[in-house]
Amino acid sequence: MGSLFRVVVIGGVAAGTKTASKITRLRPDADVTVLEKGEFLSYAGCGLPYFVSGVVKTQHELMATPVGVVRDSVFFSKVKNVHVLNHTEALAIDRTRKHVRFRRADNGEESELPYDKLMLGTGANPVIPPLPGVELRNVFTLHGVHDAVGVRDMLREHRALDVVIVGGGLIGLEMTEALVETGCRVTVVEMLPQILPMLDWEMAKQVEQHLESHGVRVMTGTRVLGFEGDGAVHHVRTDHGELSADMVILSVGVRPNVSLAVAAGLKLGPTGAIAVNDRMQTSDPDIYAAGDCVENKNLLTGKPCFVPLGSTANKQGRVAAINICGGDDTFPGVLGSTVCKVFDFCVGRTGLTETEARREGIDVETVLAPSPDKAHYMPTAKTLMLKLVIDRGSRKLLGAQAVGPGDGSKRIDVAAMALTASMTVDQLDKVDLCYAPPFSPAMDNLITAADVGRNKLDGHMTGVTPMDVYAKQQRGEDFIFLDVRSPEEYGEVQLPGTINIPLGALRKRFNELDRNKEIITFCKISLRGYEAALILRAAGFDRVRVMDGGLAMWPYPKVTV
Amino acid sequence: MGSLFRVVVIGGVAAGTKTASKITRLRPDADVTVLEKGEFLSYAGCGLPYFVSGVVKTQHELMATPVGVVRDSVFFSKVKNVHVLNHTEALAIDRTRKHVRFRRADNGEESELPYDKLMLGTGANPVIPPLPGVELRNVFTLHGVHDAVGVRDMLREHRALDVVIVGGGLIGLEMTEALVETGCRVTVVEMLPQILPMLDWEMAKQVEQHLESHGVRVMTGTRVLGFEGDGAVHHVRTDHGELSADMVILSVGVRPNVSLAVAAGLKLGPTGAIAVNDRMQTSDPDIYAAGDCVENKNLLTGKPCFVPLGSTANKQGRVAAINICGGDDTFPGVLGSTVCKVFDFCVGRTGLTETEARREGIDVETVLAPSPDKAHYMPTAKTLMLKLVIDRGSRKLLGAQAVGPGDGSKRIDVAAMALTASMTVDQLDKVDLCYAPPFSPAMDNLITAADVGRNKLDGHMTGVTPMDVYAKQQRGEDFIFLDVRSPEEYGEVQLPGTINIPLGALRKRFNELDRNKEIITFCKISLRGYEAALILRAAGFDRVRVMDGGLAMWPYPKVTV
Repeated sequence: MGSLFRVVVIGGVAAGTKTASKITRLRPDADVTVLEKGEFLSYAGCGLPYFVSGVVKTQHELMATPVGVVRDSVFFSKVKNVHVLNHTEALAIDRTRKHVRFRRADNGEESELPYDKLMLGTGANPVIPPLPGVELRNVFTLHGVHDAVGVRDMLREHRALDVVIVGGGLIGLEMTEALVETGCRVTVVEMLPQILPMLDWEMAKQVEQHLESHGVRVMTGTRVLGFEGDGAVHHVRTDHGELSADMVILSVGVRPNVSLAVAAGLKLGPTGAIAVNDRMQTSDPDIYAAGDCVENKNLLTGKPCFVPLGSTANKQGRVAAINICGGDDTFPGVLGSTVCKVFDFCVGRTGLTETEARREGIDVETVLAPSPDKAHYMPTAKTLMLKLVIDRGSRKLLGAQAVGPGDGSKRIDVAAMALTASMTVDQLDKVDLCYAPPFSPAMDNLITAADVGRNKLDGHMTGVTPMDVYAKQQRGEDFIFLDVRSPEEYGEVQLPGTINIPLGALRKRFNELDRNKEIITFCKISLRGYEAALILRAAGFDRVRVMDGGLAMWPYPKVTV
Repeated sequence: MGSLFRVVVIGGVAAGTKTASKITRLRPDADVTVLEKGEFLSYAGCGLPYFVSGVVKTQHELMATPVGVVRDSVFFSKVKNVHVLNHTEALAIDRTRKHVRFRRADNGEESELPYDKLMLGTGANPVIPPLPGVELRNVFTLHGVHDAVGVRDMLREHRALDVVIVGGGLIGLEMTEALVETGCRVTVVEMLPQILPMLDWEMAKQVEQHLESHGVRVMTGTRVLGFEGDGAVHHVRTDHGELSADMVILSVGVRPNVSLAVAAGLKLGPTGAIAVNDRMQTSDPDIYAAGDCVENKNLLTGKPCFVPLGSTANKQGRVAAINICGGDDTFPGVLGSTVCKVFDFCVGRTGLTETEARREGIDVETVLAPSPDKAHYMPTAKTLMLKLVIDRGSRKLLGAQAVGPGDGSKRIDVAAMALTASMTVDQLDKVDLCYAPPFSPAMDNLITAADVGRNKLDGHMTGVTPMDVYAKQQRGEDFIFLDVRSPEEYGEVQLPGTINIPLGALRKRFNELDRNKEIITFCKISLRGYEAALILRAAGFDRVRVMDGGLAMWPYPKVTV
């Protein structure tokens, strides 16, 4: 058996099982063993919120193939020719002897397995903040099937619970929807000034307002100090007061599982995750790693980042398998593409946010473009709010964010492709995207947004952000805030401090405006606002700007008339 | 007024009005006049089927801005500073004097307009086949608002009409759905061996079966010989018999409107449309053209093509306007990206079909990949059938087709971006597309399909098309057609001539198979079929192939058990 090719895989969820399966496909002679500490293999962790809400009926669905076969040890052995030991904890890696020591939970026995190549798919664990009372009953994380079953069981027994979600990130918000749907009263507590730090503030604000419209209380800039209760949690203490809580879900991020790697002397990257090259090799050429335990490279900045995602884990697992089997494949890096469903909103981003791009020292132009996601006359059309971040120097797209009921996931994916291809907005606005009224406007939202970007870069349009307008108002600055919508629209909802001259009347009535004052124009989405600015500029007004995103993307209170 | 910049635009639907509006934005001093033969300006022609079905309530919605302002002459004058003369036919272009002669329909008067730059947005007209009886009442084309109103009025007065659609292209099928929804019995007659020549045969066949499942009769390979009736049409004569018809819709393509251009001596391209360079300039540098009247360049082949689309018209109009105003912008070409809704199916394509690529002499690999468009455990997941066409030499994607209830429009757009960026399948399978269970599988359908392509290119998977398998069966060839689904699945629906060994039992039972025969494996989607082929190959079977697309994409009759 000297020629046997032995691979040991530590971790049997996403990257681990993907790698193991691919290896046996490429090398049927390979002897592949997966060691998994937990009970469950290859489960869809991202589906847990939908299991909690009842959208997914049983946890088995999360562990099954599309035709309903549960991916257990028998499945892996029969179908994939992979030996899986679950309830089996890897204890140490001996890199000199190329052995892994492990312990089986059932009998407590320890033994060793030799390897030619080792693969680490050890994943990540939720961060448990060291707060008083964190050990109380009904304080959950949502990581793994057991947590989800615990939450779901509690929801089945009790109705209308008070739930506090600690952390306004992705998993926290997906859980919020699941809990509200089962009748809970949910408060989201976030330490930062905004939820969803993956978005810029004004985009996150739209999501916050949407959550509030579904009865969720959102407390940003609020720090949790501890949990109180007798046995089970009763209250959450924060620096903004106490909150009743029958249940708490901690969702403050995850940390890569690197203890085995560290003990074996493998290099970590600056993010604290396992450092790998683009072949998914660790600092030991015989040890590969992939998934939530490894550090990624941001494709735009070239810098290391930690972005644990199931989609990335699967892609990296495949690359690792190919290289382990003597092939040559590389994983170039990530864009931080992310999407989630928050009630009726699709919320997504890819590339750099404005905040991230400015932090990199890039001179950026931004676009806020709200518009229907399909031909506007189709009853199925829904509003999609896009933000683009563009490099002023190179005119390349740097990032895109999407929020709203419209189909944002399509535009984020298209934007991710534009980023991968280093496209400028001048290229992006010519791409031949498919068009039919049930699927998109004739000019896709992303193309229209790219055109707004070009207009701004070329000096045809001078924009001002709603945040800057609001700040001017707060400072009491004197400027004309000109709403050019129709009187009917103006009669329904307004922004504070505006005057109304409908666009169609502007050519006749611009003499009503004081030429010495700055004028900021807008409409519902700032397309008419742009036309208005052009009319005023042509009429000799020289201090005219258009408010980005119009009324649709004003992130502050509006006046309902 | 010597410095006045005069632009005349002929045609006021898509490219014409887009150009005119953009010109006045760029040069507020420009004097822009649009001449439009018809009554209606800037209407959404692609929305007409949805007006006929009643999804769009009034024709005004198709002519309105997203906030409901109808784009009529007053709108263009007040808002855009564009003079629009509708009911006004351009008669001739005098290129030496730089004048356009035109006639107003109301008083029949002819006059002239001088131009510095001229823009042709003359569009395309439906082809009316010269068949006997084509002039009968209730024989419609669907081009322009008047036709649509005629069809809709007739549907309102009568129920359960017999309608024959001549031509199985895009508009024909969109109309089919509209008519079935209003209670008509519809027959689609197509001369070619398949409907939707924008797709490969087996993809079009899926659409055909879907139409039939909605009670539509599809007659391919059938030639219409004429129409009969007294005043109004009663029958359609074909080479496969007579069809009752209370209404006929001719949808056999469009032809560019080039008569003015030809009379003025402007060059046409080989497709018969107006030749333009990438700045949208005709052979006369002062005359630009855009939209359905111009010839496009196929971005993949570099060859001229005629692909009239509203999306392209808008993009080209913008490019023309920028160049007319002294700027510099180019329109690189098209990919033939197309999408349409056919009942519950989204049907799309981009790039080259297999047929088109082979006609170009390219050595292609193909992939048929059917799978759920979202995480398979989500109740909202729907089947999406993808076909990829890949250049074997360069490993670049050449085209993608999507059919099914799943979200194909997203994948077609992402594929269009991959084509624009000349990506190989090895690059495509690493792109950081956004993932969450309500929006996509962890490995997006396109990424999985790219992986299948890589497996085929690298020799890990040897595929055989369902067409080849069917042909082998028809020839009576002896081979093992091995279905590796579960006995339960096999008990529901089968392909003819198969035997069943479930994948999980194959490692134990492969000795039941005759090693001298060719084996063709498959399952529902041919993922288990692929695993089965690998198991058999590892066991020393050397003539094993996997049937592309599995049972899900078998385009022939199945056996319901």
